[in-house]
Amino acid sequence: MALPSPGHSVTFRVHTPPSFSATSDLASAIARTGAAITALDVIESTGEHMCIDITANTRGQAHVESISTMIRHREGTELRRVSDRTFLMHVGGKIETTSKVSLRNRDDLSRAYTPGVARVCMAIAEDRSEARRLTIKGNTVAVVTDGTAVLGLGDIGPEAAMPVMEGKAILFKKFADVNAWPVALDTKDTEEIIAICKAIAPAYGGINLEDIAAPRCFEIEARLREELDIPVFHDDQHGTAIVTQAALVNALKVVGKDIADVRIVISGVGAAGFAIIRLLLASGAKHIRAAGRGGVIERGTTYGEAHRTWIAEHTNEEEFSGTLKKAVVGADVFIGVSAPNVLGEEDVAAMNEGAIVFAMANPDPEIDPELASKHAAIVATGRSDYPNQINNVLVFPGFFRGLLDSGATDVSDDMMLAAAEAIASCIDEDELHPGFLIPSVFDPKVSPRVAEAVKKAAKAEQR
Amino acid sequence: MALPSPGHSVTFRVHTPPSFSATSDLASAIARTGAAITALDVIESTGEHMCIDITANTRGQAHVESISTMIRHREGTELRRVSDRTFLMHVGGKIETTSKVSLRNRDDLSRAYTPGVARVCMAIAEDRSEARRLTIKGNTVAVVTDGTAVLGLGDIGPEAAMPVMEGKAILFKKFADVNAWPVALDTKDTEEIIAICKAIAPAYGGINLEDIAAPRCFEIEARLREELDIPVFHDDQHGTAIVTQAALVNALKVVGKDIADVRIVISGVGAAGFAIIRLLLASGAKHIRAAGRGGVIERGTTYGEAHRTWIAEHTNEEEFSGTLKKAVVGADVFIGVSAPNVLGEEDVAAMNEGAIVFAMANPDPEIDPELASKHAAIVATGRSDYPNQINNVLVFPGFFRGLLDSGATDVSDDMMLAAAEAIASCIDEDELHPGFLIPSVFDPKVSPRVAEAVKKAAKAEQR
Repeated sequence: MALPSPGHSVTFRVHTPPSFSATSDLASAIARTGAAITALDVIESTGEHMCIDITANTRGQAHVESISTMIRHREGTELRRVSDRTFLMHVGGKIETTSKVSLRNRDDLSRAYTPGVARVCMAIAEDRSEARRLTIKGNTVAVVTDGTAVLGLGDIGPEAAMPVMEGKAILFKKFADVNAWPVALDTKDTEEIIAICKAIAPAYGGINLEDIAAPRCFEIEARLREELDIPVFHDDQHGTAIVTQAALVNALKVVGKDIADVRIVISGVGAAGFAIIRLLLASGAKHIRAAGRGGVIERGTTYGEAHRTWIAEHTNEEEFSGTLKKAVVGADVFIGVSAPNVLGEEDVAAMNEGAIVFAMANPDPEIDPELASKHAAIVATGRSDYPNQINNVLVFPGFFRGLLDSGATDVSDDMMLAAAEAIASCIDEDELHPGFLIPSVFDPKVSPRVAEAVKKAAKAEQR
Repeated sequence: MALPSPGHSVTFRVHTPPSFSATSDLASAIARTGAAITALDVIESTGEHMCIDITANTRGQAHVESISTMIRHREGTELRRVSDRTFLMHVGGKIETTSKVSLRNRDDLSRAYTPGVARVCMAIAEDRSEARRLTIKGNTVAVVTDGTAVLGLGDIGPEAAMPVMEGKAILFKKFADVNAWPVALDTKDTEEIIAICKAIAPAYGGINLEDIAAPRCFEIEARLREELDIPVFHDDQHGTAIVTQAALVNALKVVGKDIADVRIVISGVGAAGFAIIRLLLASGAKHIRAAGRGGVIERGTTYGEAHRTWIAEHTNEEEFSGTLKKAVVGADVFIGVSAPNVLGEEDVAAMNEGAIVFAMANPDPEIDPELASKHAAIVATGRSDYPNQINNVLVFPGFFRGLLDSGATDVSDDMMLAAAEAIASCIDEDELHPGFLIPSVFDPKVSPRVAEAVKKAAKAEQR
């Protein structure tokens, strides 16, 4: 039997009768299951009960469940909550604000705050561009969400979106030393979200839109790009498109095909699909079919959503009409940003020789990657438990580092393509093979190269 | 002559002709003035010029000016900027966001971010109150301004307000371990500011309004208190009122008078004056006269601004009519939150025996404190270079610590009075004298006592 381990550390919050023996009896009972108790904290004690947090190393989920059941069945005892390591990691939030300057004495205080700070304020009042130098603006990004399209979870609301936004903030910091702050908005009104982003902009050098449902996200992004003088990046679009492009650049090298020649089929015409198509076109792709739930988007048709009409105007030059499954017959590349299991093994088998399959639906891909790999030359997913994880974390930290360092005011196709090439370049030609298309998120080369590529593209545009 | 010192370290940004000798000649010329050059950084080099930052220890402001003049007069050389220690302290901003969890490997990443984070998101989606436990909400405050009433500087705009808001954030952290984040808004529209505060609230456990011009600040505060389920504190009102009350509690002890008996004259009926009056009334004061620019507010008169009408309904029960100078004759307490030099020495002399004068206009008080102290028993100011500095820093960190820890949803008079008593209590009876009414901002007792007092008051109200 496995030993209790800190990897399976769990905290049980329990209400017991208000007596010493009730607590110690409970602790003994938990210990007798084989758990190793590491802490026992009394949270509250009233006349009616004591509230106790018992933390213990366990042997895993089954052990936790048996302890929980035991506690629930004890006379006078109530199990209030069971917290595991993931939850414990989140207690109190994952980020904090810290001071970059010391405040040891009156002299420090008089420079960081009144009266000395007044001169700094006046310098910015006289020249607003000094804000980038003298405030956090030059290195700070707002991570803005309305909580309507969080991970695969959908519209879970701004409070519930916060753990993802905080996670994003720590990734920004760890991989590119960018300060990011979560702005989780309790509104779904497009105009209000736009107005808020514009109003909060003085403190930020860039805006990262995150997990906002389509098609609202397109309008918000387009308007903000127009109306703000700081760059606006929508990670679900641009981040996904860039890392997909990076993987494709290397995948085409492996199979020895050219972007201009390959037939590409996209499943999913939401935020990610739309952005991927735009970047593919910018990179020279010429034969693209894009499928939504109702089949392939038809050339020249006008759709209810503007972005679908745009896709109809720019893809499917052969005027193909039909289902996704028919569209992939003979295709070179499949890119899925849609839903689980929309393809079967036979569909991948029907693709062209040297097929490339990116099945990125999360957590369940468009086709089981093991089935796909029986027929495709290359398979990639969005998951961390298969080779070739196509992960936005490779993009956004370095991308914003480059935007902030160059003082860029906009995000361009050139920057995005340069970032994709930079990520692809982290795998040397002699390392490159079907199971190693894209670098690990922990590869320290990635973020600096992406930043440098974005900076160079920005400088070229500023000239 | 004084030696060059790091205390007077200054950076000169200079454009020189693009030659090595131009740079080295300039450095030598600066060194010849007696400055000690500590760094020479080339920022940019084009065909036309080099941009160089020369950092040097100097003997002080006069020395800096003579070097600046010398640089300006050199052929082909242009002085772009001179940055002193205060400015250097602000370069890059004063705060940053940091991670509270480590991200060393894939396992960490999968708990702090996808896929593990999804379970935490869902726990909050199912029970929104978990946000206080599992996100930064439980320990994070928004410092919201529109930049319209910053320090004594007035309407300098949101970018220029940022150094004050960042300063506030580091004080929150240092004195009470509260995470505070600056929200500097590019709008002066009352409704929009209210809507934004409501929209951003999911990430915050409280809102600190800051440096928003009256009377807009009253409407914003009142509406947010009504419409939000997190506490809203307007530092220019509540912070000032609490610390003034704290000083008055101790001043009255020194002169041996009772709050119910003394005649109090307030100069200034803006945000601070209004809040001070309200708290004085809540603490049992009965005889208050409040003067604006046009003289004492008249009992029962209706004014253009609602808060003035409120003051007219609640003060000046003797129906006094006249100027500030006439109002202070025979008064026991003068509290100034208005403008420089509204009182003369003769006015203080005309006050009652054991007069208390709080002249808090910044940087120049309502009366020169040295003149006032010839006649008053007690003099306090808002300045750090006189005894008895009445400083909001004593209040807001601990106050929010208490609000957050108690999960309070509102700010009450009882909490404010309790906080004032807590600050006053930091000076023992035997330490108390006319020159030592209030503790230093560095007194480590202050913030915990304020927090405890607020928590206790909040708990009493929750029952």
